[in-house]
Amino acid sequence: MAPVKVFGSAAFTNVARVLVCLEEVGADYEVVNIDFLAKEHKKPEHLARNPFGEIPAFQDGDLVLFESRAIAKYILRKYRTGEVDMLRESNPEEAATADVWEVEAHQYSKAVAPIVYECIVYPTAYGIPTNQKVVDESVEKLKEVLEIYEGRLSKHEYLAGSFISVADLNHFPFTFRFMETPYASVFDSFPSVKAWWEKLLLRPSVKKISADMQKRV
Amino acid sequence: MAPVKVFGSAAFTNVARVLVCLEEVGADYEVVNIDFLAKEHKKPEHLARNPFGEIPAFQDGDLVLFESRAIAKYILRKYRTGEVDMLRESNPEEAATADVWEVEAHQYSKAVAPIVYECIVYPTAYGIPTNQKVVDESVEKLKEVLEIYEGRLSKHEYLAGSFISVADLNHFPFTFRFMETPYASVFDSFPSVKAWWEKLLLRPSVKKISADMQKRV
Repeated sequence: MAPVKVFGSAAFTNVARVLVCLEEVGADYEVVNIDFLAKEHKKPEHLARNPFGEIPAFQDGDLVLFESRAIAKYILRKYRTGEVDMLRESNPEEAATADVWEVEAHQYSKAVAPIVYECIVYPTAYGIPTNQKVVDESVEKLKEVLEIYEGRLSKHEYLAGSFISVADLNHFPFTFRFMETPYASVFDSFPSVKAWWEKLLLRPSVKKISADMQKRV
Repeated sequence: MAPVKVFGSAAFTNVARVLVCLEEVGADYEVVNIDFLAKEHKKPEHLARNPFGEIPAFQDGDLVLFESRAIAKYILRKYRTGEVDMLRESNPEEAATADVWEVEAHQYSKAVAPIVYECIVYPTAYGIPTNQKVVDESVEKLKEVLEIYEGRLSKHEYLAGSFISVADLNHFPFTFRFMETPYASVFDSFPSVKAWWEKLLLRPSVKKISADMQKRV
């Protein structure tokens, strides 16, 4: 069977979100680089994959998908085994609790992403100086969010309960980049969150994609 | 069996998203109002349901959930029948395509929500005047998003394909409120999108919750 294809590189958080799932399930995959400088993501060939002209896109035979969280779920659903079941769709309560912690998209990443963009992406990729006001506001917002995560993770090993799920994995890419900013120590005030993050870092899938993210290409 | 409970009223788009699913599957449910003026959403009883102090929250026996899109999926999963299957989780390709169109959360509602807030929510609920710059920018962004939707809906009856799914339903509440703003005619330039919306409006579930939304309490 031909390997599935991911369009975009691990340097990009939304692509890394997909790649860590592929590593987690041990799927055979191929990464197809999209040249941003050449605006390849806005060319017809890529727009046919993702009409929003963003990355990642994903291909499995005739099926073409976009939106990193949707692709992540497809991968975790397709390659699900008795041992690796990160969606728990056969158990409505577990599946729902994993879905709830898509809080990642609606609360967590909304606080973390501006810090990553202002401290890393804009200065290094575009030469745009950091907007400190945006950073400071986002750090305050993040602390509020982490307070709630601390409450959750002080009682449960993982966000959805006693099992690792798509909810935990989805947090990996932005958290990894956040830890490269000068604000990484914010996590020190939230011991259960920090322990959860350190446990995620030990996973082979996370180690592998972290190393690829560090190359930043 | 005790009816499931929804905390929050249909006047709020995120609550309406949950209610329309309950109507769609014909579930027995009870709406528990949360008094915003009395800041009931920030009181311990509600924070135990939703630590972010937002609405909706949802209760089914011992299971308590928050995040409207997660609740919507739980409902559509729990009450799934051969006739009403809006997640299609037994078919990985269909499920993935429905997931992709959670574009609703990541693209569509990001453009529509500021228009709804600036034109309706802020002026009527808080006496804050409309920020026209925000509205104008969001309308431009919305047109770009609708252009992509037009491409999709000119080829497919519904967003995920030939079947109605959670992806379509998720668009209902913000689109309904958007149609109450002075910018409703933006849809006239996108005939397939407009036809899709008008078809959604014919559904008994949508009619019922639309009527409740119009009461605005």
